[in-house]
Amino acid sequence: MTRTRFHQGLDDLKQKLLAMGGMAEQAVERAVRAYQTRDLSLCELVLRDESKINAAERDVDEMSIDLLAMQQPMAIDLRFIVACIKINADLERVGDQAVNIAERVMDLLSRPDPALNVDIPRMAQLSISMVRDALNAFLTADVDMAQAVLERDDMVDNMNREIFEAVDAAMAKSAGMHRNLLDTLIVARNLERVADHATNIAEDVIFWVRGADVRHHSQA
Amino acid sequence: MTRTRFHQGLDDLKQKLLAMGGMAEQAVERAVRAYQTRDLSLCELVLRDESKINAAERDVDEMSIDLLAMQQPMAIDLRFIVACIKINADLERVGDQAVNIAERVMDLLSRPDPALNVDIPRMAQLSISMVRDALNAFLTADVDMAQAVLERDDMVDNMNREIFEAVDAAMAKSAGMHRNLLDTLIVARNLERVADHATNIAEDVIFWVRGADVRHHSQA
Repeated sequence: MTRTRFHQGLDDLKQKLLAMGGMAEQAVERAVRAYQTRDLSLCELVLRDESKINAAERDVDEMSIDLLAMQQPMAIDLRFIVACIKINADLERVGDQAVNIAERVMDLLSRPDPALNVDIPRMAQLSISMVRDALNAFLTADVDMAQAVLERDDMVDNMNREIFEAVDAAMAKSAGMHRNLLDTLIVARNLERVADHATNIAEDVIFWVRGADVRHHSQA
Repeated sequence: MTRTRFHQGLDDLKQKLLAMGGMAEQAVERAVRAYQTRDLSLCELVLRDESKINAAERDVDEMSIDLLAMQQPMAIDLRFIVACIKINADLERVGDQAVNIAERVMDLLSRPDPALNVDIPRMAQLSISMVRDALNAFLTADVDMAQAVLERDDMVDNMNREIFEAVDAAMAKSAGMHRNLLDTLIVARNLERVADHATNIAEDVIFWVRGADVRHHSQA
């Protein structure tokens, strides 16, 4: 089995992107756990770790650029590296959403718990699983898995709409709870953005695999 | 003056990315004009043109990949192409934000105008100018202009926070206007995301120019 330095580099890039995805997922999980358990220290942990995710993003970019510069890549490898660069940017923004959620939770914690009847944890679970599956779809070149992520985006959009309506209805009734309702609404929207990023990744996977299929033997 | 096909390709890519930026800016401008003038037809125009922006995104990606495949690019050209790919993705999402705003405006138009005292047009103007300047900074490799975009992001974040507070205060007072307040809040947040994308672009410019400076003569 011959392994060039280039192919070892591709494997390293894959591993690094997977680690980046793990960090981004963990940040969202922590932010949502902070929401559920009203845990300020978890919020602070999310804010503290943002710089690590940003640094990892730069590392993945640098590894990608080094690989592109190392030799004339085959079309299939070229598309893989370009997909890594794009997916990397989405993962970094998933991390940004975790920070946004943590900030809203900190605002929520400054007032009594209104015990709103909206299912943020379920929405979070779905969004996080979309990110995970989109990344796995990429690493296994699995178009069906990527397609399934796209379909789940509609579910998250519907949840987001339901929460918007629920907040709207609750505001009409409850006096003095506006601020917490607003915070909750924003958390839902942030999660919806997490799902959007997963959708972007899934689209890149489909674009990449199809492009690889089409162009594998016909380098431009 | 010798012009290789590769360098002609780089110029074409620049032009295409600039056109992509123009489309994304125009979409946000139209969505915000729809908000100001309560114009349903402008909303519909924004929704209709989304597919054009998505198609343009794919074109830029394909041009970039073709250029990367065409020959072994110099490090400086390599970084330029990678930056195009990343900036392209941000511009497409600016277009997505225009669609989100248009949808909120359509919701607003279904009820009487509450004449909220929040300065959405000013926030829009600032966000759109950030996108334009970030893209120009890229095309002229102007780190100072990119840096100025990063600084303006704080202004947009502050405006977003002010609008959140204004909506929160208005909700405490006005009965029956919650829904329009919510819509307005979401518009403000969408604009804040436009500014975020401009910031991402500006960061890519700085990363690209600095990388080009550092690595111009030391290809990895």
